[in-house]
Formats: sequence, C-alpha cells, structure tokens
Amino acid sequence: MKQTFAVIGLGRFGLSVCQSLVAAGQEVLAIDNNEELITSYKDLVTQAVIADAQDEDAMRELDLGSFNHVVIALGQNIQASVLSTLIAKELGVKHIIAKAETTMHGKALQKIGADQIVFPERDMGKRVARRLLSHNILNYLELSDTYTLAEIRVENGKLSGKTLDDLNFRKQFGLTLVAIRRGKDVQVSPPATAVIEKGDTLSVIGETMDVEHLDSELSK
Amino acid sequence: MKQTFAVIGLGRFGLSVCQSLVAAGQEVLAIDNNEELITSYKDLVTQAVIADAQDEDAMRELDLGSFNHVVIALGQNIQASVLSTLIAKELGVKHIIAKAETTMHGKALQKIGADQIVFPERDMGKRVARRLLSHNILNYLELSDTYTLAEIRVENGKLSGKTLDDLNFRKQFGLTLVAIRRGKDVQVSPPATAVIEKGDTLSVIGETMDVEHLDSELSK
Ligand SMILES: Nc1ncnc2c1ncn2[C@@H]1O[C@H](COP(=O)(O)OP(=O)(O)OP(=O)(O)O)[C@@H](O)[C@H]1O
Ligand SMILES: Nc1ncnc2c1ncn2[C@@H]1O[C@H](COP(=O)(O)OP(=O)(O)OP(=O)(O)O)[C@@H](O)[C@H]1O
Ligand SMILES: [Ca+2]
Ligand SMILES: [Ca+2]
Ligand SMILES: [Ca+2]
Ligand SMILES: [Ca+2]
Repeated sequence: MKQTFAVIGLGRFGLSVCQSLVAAGQEVLAIDNNEELITSYKDLVTQAVIADAQDEDAMRELDLGSFNHVVIALGQNIQASVLSTLIAKELGVKHIIAKAETTMHGKALQKIGADQIVFPERDMGKRVARRLLSHNILNYLELSDTYTLAEIRVENGKLSGKTLDDLNFRKQFGLTLVAIRRGKDVQVSPPATAVIEKGDTLSVIGETMDVEHLDSELSK
Repeated sequence: MKQTFAVIGLGRFGLSVCQSLVAAGQEVLAIDNNEELITSYKDLVTQAVIADAQDEDAMRELDLGSFNHVVIALGQNIQASVLSTLIAKELGVKHIIAKAETTMHGKALQKIGADQIVFPERDMGKRVARRLLSHNILNYLELSDTYTLAEIRVENGKLSGKTLDDLNFRKQFGLTLVAIRRGKDVQVSPPATAVIEKGDTLSVIGETMDVEHLDSELSK
C-alpha cells in the first residue's frame, strides 16, 4: 500500500525531508504559510499549499488526517508547532514526527502525542561526538539509552588467532558477538570455535560503555 | 594517546557535542563570546573561556593549534564561522569539523580547509526521511552487499504472544534475532522461550532480502 506524506514547514529541515522523500519517488504534500517558499518549491513536491498550520479548518480541508505520516517541521514558532501537532492528532494522523527546539518544547510535543521528536542540532551534535570518539566503529545503532549495536574493525593483533572460546569473548567484553565479517563473507552467530583475525569487522551488541571499551581495545 | 577537543560556540549543536564528549570522559575546551553561557557551562567542561573566535591572538593564546580536534559550532554568524575556521587552519589544527547553515556556507568552509562539514537540519532531514521510507525498519546497517542488520518494529499481531520456539523464528524468516527491545528494556540473544509482542523492536541479522520480507510481514 502506497504511503502518503505531508510536511508542514519548509525550513532547512522540512525541505530536506521533502527532497529525500521525493528523490525516493514518494508523493509529498508540502505546507507553509510563506508564499515565496511555496512558489519556489511547488515543482519539487506533488502538491504545495500556502496555509497556516495553526488553522484547523485549513488542515481539515487539506484532509491532513488522511496522510499516513505527517512531519511537523516548524521551528522558531513554537506555538505553531504545538498547535499544529495538536490539530494533526485531532484529525487522526497515525504517525506524527515533530521537530523540537528545546527540551521543554520536545516534552510538550510528546505529551500532545507526537510519535517521534527530532532535535536536529542536538541529535547531530551527539552523532558528531560519537564519530569523534570512536576509533574503529564503522557504524552503530542505538537500541536504547544504554544499548548499542556496533560494527567495529579489528585494527590490531590483540585478539588475533584466538577462538571466541579462548578469548571468553562474552565474559571478557560483556558483549554479544552477532557476526564476523571478513571481506565479503559474513558469519552470523559465530560458534565458540570461530577465530578473530586482524582486519575483521565485528558486529557486537551490548551496553554502550562496553562497546566503547572494546573499540578502544581494538585501536592501535 | 589521549585526544584533545575544543568546541567553539555553545549553541545547541556545540553544547550537545560538549556534553557527549564530557559524558565519555574526554577533556574539552569550550569557547564562546557570550559570558552568560560560559558561566552556565564552566562546570560542565574542563575549561570554558570567554573569547571571540574571530580574534586570532586570543585563539593563539589558548593554543588552539595544539588540539587534535576542533569543532566550529558557530551558526547564524557566518562571518565568524568562516574566519574561525581560517584561524584554526592557520594555527595548524589537524582535524576541523564545522557546522554550516547553507550550501554556500558549507562550500566556503570546505575551501578554507574544514575536514568535515555538518548541516544539522539538512542531515537530520535526510535521516528522518530514510526512516520513514522503510515500513517498520527503524534503522539498519549494511554489513555487506547481501547481509543487513536491522531494527524492525512489530506493528501488527502476527507474531504476538508466541515464543521464538513456537514461531521457529530462524527457520521461518532465515534471520537471526539478536535482540528484542520493549520500551527501555533490551533483551540480548533472547532464548527460545522469549515471546514477541506487538510494539517490540526486533534487531535481526541476515540476508537483506529476508530482512525486507520480515519488514513487510510486520507492517500493517
Ligand atoms: N503557522 C505556520 N504555518 C505554516 N508554516 C509556518 C508557520 N510558521 C512558520 N512556518 C514555516 O515553517 C518554516 C520553518 O520555520 P522556521 O524557519 O522558523 O524554522 P527553523 O527552525 O528556522 O527551520 P530550519 O532550522 O529547519 O531551517 C518556515 O518556512 C516558515 O515559513
Ligand atoms: N565570534 C564569536 N566568538 C565566539 N562565540 C561566538 C561568536 N559568534 C557567536 N558565538 C556563539 O556561538 C554560539 C552559537 O551561535 P548561534 O546561536 O548564532 O548559532 P545557532 O546556529 O543558532 O546554534 P544552534 O543552532 O546550534 O543552537 C552562541 O552561543 C554564540 O554566543
Ligand atoms: Ca529558518
Ligand atoms: Ca532551526
Ligand atoms: Ca542559537
Ligand atoms: Ca541553528
């Protein structure tokens, strides 16, 4: 079933969401109260409408409630963001993503019923710091506040030539090794007899602290 | 060898970088020309200094050139951002990450020699769109051309209330279930008796095709 997307607010964040969705062949309704912006981007999206996101009747007329996903990308105008989230919720939108400026703003949006809150500056700050801190972490997923799944490259010989059993991997590092990649080969759920070699990439899951510890162990 | 970090500008992005670095036990020098901000955060970071990032002498006195990583997190003041990047470069900083507001701003920073440019709003917009495009795949890592590790949300009741053993999970889906997240709880390497519930998030690893198949099975 084709999904439908509406993006409210064409600031840098909202515009970027629109561009990526359009690039992936999706149909997107863009809403902004700035006529110039709507004129500029009317050929980018499927439908571009000048409207005030705080105007419930206008949102109802656009049938906002019928969209599968609504992204509320209003920034500096926190009142508009909060009201717009409330209206989307009342119109029955099932999945609302809202951008927040501050912690309090984010809390308000969550209380009102936004399903996902995005703090662009804060979230990117975390990502940049994470990248700065990781020596050999190629990629990671934060599963929760404390759990991380990460791909770590083995850069030194500390673990080389030993089996998981020899290493007592889970005990020693407090991590579950879910896969070993060697070149194009991926060994999922490696057995206790599996051997780690320099150059391998390990996919591990566990507490973020333990992931960071293994990362520094595997650095030169 | 201990790495050293300087963050110039304590807006939301810069502050978030500082917080994450400090949380990871790193030493951080924070610079801002706003006295109030420096007073607020002087206990957060190792050293907090009121200084104008455009003042080359001040930056030299702080020995900015000796830091391994400098994050230039000046936003609205594009001139300050550009000048500050130039100064960091001239003082010999090896790794400069700079935040940009617009494409042109980013190009200027790159020309001057910033090693990495971050566009918080645009980058997060892309991330959010990518997440919207996969049905229930919240996040994923491509381990190789054929293998993927993904977090998939269970949106329907098809698997609910059954143990992994009942479901014959690995056989049925060709995937290894590496973790089940329920709210803030993460169960790593769930046993055969573990039960999947609607609303859970599954971390699975296996062939990309099989991951996509499970994703569509779990969609409404
Ligand atoms: N009540 C409203 N109805 C519709 N659109 C609105 C409303 N208020 C603001 N907007 C639009 O929302 C967009 C984003 O707002 P604004 O520029 O204040 O946020 P921003 O946080 O600076 O954006 P970004 O940081 O993503 O660039 C603007 O294009 C603005 O015209
Ligand atoms: N010349 C300067 N020297 C030092 N600090 C500066 C200078 N100019 C601005 N700053 C500081 O940089 C910080 C970030 O600037 P500003 O708030 O304009 O950016 P921003 O893009 O809105 O930040 P964010 O979006 O990350 O919240 C502010 O705390 C400001 O005091
Ligand atoms: Ca703006
Ligand atoms: Ca903004
Ligand atoms: Ca600011
Ligand atoms: Ca900003």
